[in-house]
Amino acid sequence: MTAALALAQDNAAARAAREWRQQHERAIVDEFFSLLAIPNIARDRDNIQRNAETIARMLEKRGVAAKLVSVPGANPVVFGEIRTPGASRTIVFYAHYDGQPLDPKEWASPPFEPVLRDKPVQDGGKTIPLPAAGQPFDPEWRLYARGAGDDKAPIIAMLTALDAMRAAGIRTRSNIKFAFEGEEEAGSPNLERILAANKELFAGDLWLMCDGPVYQTRQQQIVFGARGDTGLDITLYGPRYELHSGHYGNWAPNPALMLAQLLASMKNAEGRITIDHFYDGITPLSPLEKRAIAEAPVIDEMLAREFWLGSTEGGGAKLNDLVTLPALNVRGMASSRTGNQASNVIPATATASIDIRLVPGMDAHETTSRVVEHIRKQGFFVVDKEPDADTRRSHAKVALVTVRGGDNAVRTPMDLPMAQEVIRVVESVRGPTVKLPNMGGSLPLTSIVRPLGTRVIVVPIANHDDNQHSFNENLRVQNLWDGIELMAGLLVM
Amino acid sequence: MTAALALAQDNAAARAAREWRQQHERAIVDEFFSLLAIPNIARDRDNIQRNAETIARMLEKRGVAAKLVSVPGANPVVFGEIRTPGASRTIVFYAHYDGQPLDPKEWASPPFEPVLRDKPVQDGGKTIPLPAAGQPFDPEWRLYARGAGDDKAPIIAMLTALDAMRAAGIRTRSNIKFAFEGEEEAGSPNLERILAANKELFAGDLWLMCDGPVYQTRQQQIVFGARGDTGLDITLYGPRYELHSGHYGNWAPNPALMLAQLLASMKNAEGRITIDHFYDGITPLSPLEKRAIAEAPVIDEMLAREFWLGSTEGGGAKLNDLVTLPALNVRGMASSRTGNQASNVIPATATASIDIRLVPGMDAHETTSRVVEHIRKQGFFVVDKEPDADTRRSHAKVALVTVRGGDNAVRTPMDLPMAQEVIRVVESVRGPTVKLPNMGGSLPLTSIVRPLGTRVIVVPIANHDDNQHSFNENLRVQNLWDGIELMAGLLVM
Repeated sequence: MTAALALAQDNAAARAAREWRQQHERAIVDEFFSLLAIPNIARDRDNIQRNAETIARMLEKRGVAAKLVSVPGANPVVFGEIRTPGASRTIVFYAHYDGQPLDPKEWASPPFEPVLRDKPVQDGGKTIPLPAAGQPFDPEWRLYARGAGDDKAPIIAMLTALDAMRAAGIRTRSNIKFAFEGEEEAGSPNLERILAANKELFAGDLWLMCDGPVYQTRQQQIVFGARGDTGLDITLYGPRYELHSGHYGNWAPNPALMLAQLLASMKNAEGRITIDHFYDGITPLSPLEKRAIAEAPVIDEMLAREFWLGSTEGGGAKLNDLVTLPALNVRGMASSRTGNQASNVIPATATASIDIRLVPGMDAHETTSRVVEHIRKQGFFVVDKEPDADTRRSHAKVALVTVRGGDNAVRTPMDLPMAQEVIRVVESVRGPTVKLPNMGGSLPLTSIVRPLGTRVIVVPIANHDDNQHSFNENLRVQNLWDGIELMAGLLVM
Repeated sequence: MTAALALAQDNAAARAAREWRQQHERAIVDEFFSLLAIPNIARDRDNIQRNAETIARMLEKRGVAAKLVSVPGANPVVFGEIRTPGASRTIVFYAHYDGQPLDPKEWASPPFEPVLRDKPVQDGGKTIPLPAAGQPFDPEWRLYARGAGDDKAPIIAMLTALDAMRAAGIRTRSNIKFAFEGEEEAGSPNLERILAANKELFAGDLWLMCDGPVYQTRQQQIVFGARGDTGLDITLYGPRYELHSGHYGNWAPNPALMLAQLLASMKNAEGRITIDHFYDGITPLSPLEKRAIAEAPVIDEMLAREFWLGSTEGGGAKLNDLVTLPALNVRGMASSRTGNQASNVIPATATASIDIRLVPGMDAHETTSRVVEHIRKQGFFVVDKEPDADTRRSHAKVALVTVRGGDNAVRTPMDLPMAQEVIRVVESVRGPTVKLPNMGGSLPLTSIVRPLGTRVIVVPIANHDDNQHSFNENLRVQNLWDGIELMAGLLVM
């Protein structure tokens, strides 16, 4: 922390941001709470609109020209722009103002009534009043509300950074655009359409994705991409209806066992995917990317302890290396009944739902085709709708396979000059960073890269323990303070 | 059918039974429906008691001395007795009045509101009103209710046969006992204790087990034994709670995949069980038994067509041969969620429920031990209760294995004089029969044979397509009619 502090003072914008923040903590949190108090579930159109309009007004209050951009049926993207005389490039700051769906009953306090707590709720954190203006916040306190971490925090951080810059007379050097999405948690169903319909408006040399958490050690991280995502559902068939397992056991084929054999044929004991050509064409990591991974703190043991794991997949490889490979995950499996509901039957069907994470060089459609081809090689006649009696009678093994759409992975090479510049700026504010070629999860990066042909780099600010996709979502106060300084640094790139 | 009809007339008791039935179809079904309307899940103690008392009253109505016999914690056996002056032997008629557990949501109509349908529900069968008294039932109609086929039908058949015998003045020649169990579908946990505590009461030269279905050609069958039954539930562990499959996929172990790999290791593609020593010590079939199997109609193709199967296990071996071998069946499997409920998670647990069918020469306990040993050989640390954090952290793979109790197989030699006599009587009523050394299913035969040292032969009446262990259980009307005639013949043995 001390090293980071010292470094922060080398970045004038970050230094100005810190001074401003120290003088305005209560006002910053008040504005943040006002924004968090507007419910932000993507399907709640009225409140989504209120969020968008509120954010547009907040931009305009800072002198940023703002408007709402949309296509029919979509939640609006809040667009803002700072034109910088003489600037030769444009940087677009992305965040999203919608939040994950929720069940208020699971929350310790109402998700859209923001509160301050003295520590995490699961550690017994109690609601406390906001300090009076001029009184400091404890940086370990937490701000609780849906969207606190994911992903309204970057919006407040950027706007506060603009306030600090104006007060200190610091100007932008690039053209700056803001793009705040309103349905990321619904899977960004319209982002690509909106961008494709407004290419010039959203054009930029670089998109900075301000979403997701910092590293689990609380170090700042910079992530240069995300895995893609696709998947398929497989249903295998036994007898037309459940049969008595005594009368027909050992004769009637058991779809649960067939499913077990099929899934087992897809991965070996070390977790290596054994589907032909699955790893073909994967873009290798560059030496710089490999070195960045090697330099990242190893958190495997800490995580294994937290998750009660006695082993991991990948034959001892580290998490940060493994997420640069594709994953094939059985996300659910069902056949007849278990536990007290089980009975002595041969199941009629067995189903598995599989999700696949893709890395650069893989194509979502091609990858699911390879899985389907693998299923065929295991002797299955593959159909795409419920097979009828004749189909089932005339093939030894029948599989219904439903392929979900998918998004390919996106990765920005770390050695691009602009990528190197982002690293330098971020480190000038936040000290040494963790740099990862891609995150394990997926973000709507193809929806940006495909229509705009731009580059994306992910610069998150939330704490990793912010419960972002669960109840009791929160933001650690220090992460907001750090985020303000980071955004100030990036806004004057 | 014509041949069977002609033969039936050679047996006076069966002839009397048919005449009685033809005059009383509606009354017989009314009494059956009243019995089926009493819920009969073994753990539902109040209703089990109502069933038992109702059946006792039904026996007494026929002049059969009846009582409920039990031990603490057990569901009562309904006992009835007809002492026959001068009789030199005693035949005990067994059936059970409890039914398989169920989920009413899966049923086309409530399981304890019996209905008549014009054909099987899966063929579009519609509920139809009962014909008025004096109007005949179509023999292909079906009676739907839990217990209709398994196993309240034989109880009604025996009682109706007694009515017919009394009306025709036909008397028993042996001493007759009735033993109707109330927890067969719960695995007959107390039958042996009840019989052992009442050896004299239940003593008999032969127990006729009236349970299970007739042959799939609808021919009468006589079965000289049953496979034994045991099983185990396996739960495998992944992370403590479901994890994001993007962030941790390919690193956190997936218990669904581990389960698939474990189950796949237990059987090969032909259905041969690949657990060490699993087939050790199996008693070979005698020449008479082999001949009986060879003479049984081959129904594999017919069944495959009916069950929509394009292949069977066993590398082309016939069903009748395969059921003289042990079976290992995955009766249910579950991990996280599938279909619309699925989400991108690495499941926290995966569970399978396995049932095993045993043949003579195998021991239930020894067999499950071999399965547990197999699980250990696949690298699992096996526990018998929910593993804690330390256990899970300190072992690469942990399996919670719960072994169910079990019953060994029982087989009565076909060449015993009494076995030959049963064959003669049954064939005098029902024409040529199918004779099998053992059925594929299991019956609580050891619980009878061990305490009483008697012999058992299985004489079933239900249709094979009665969905007995699933939802929409039913009885084909003609099977009830045939059953009444068969019971009449056997009651005067």
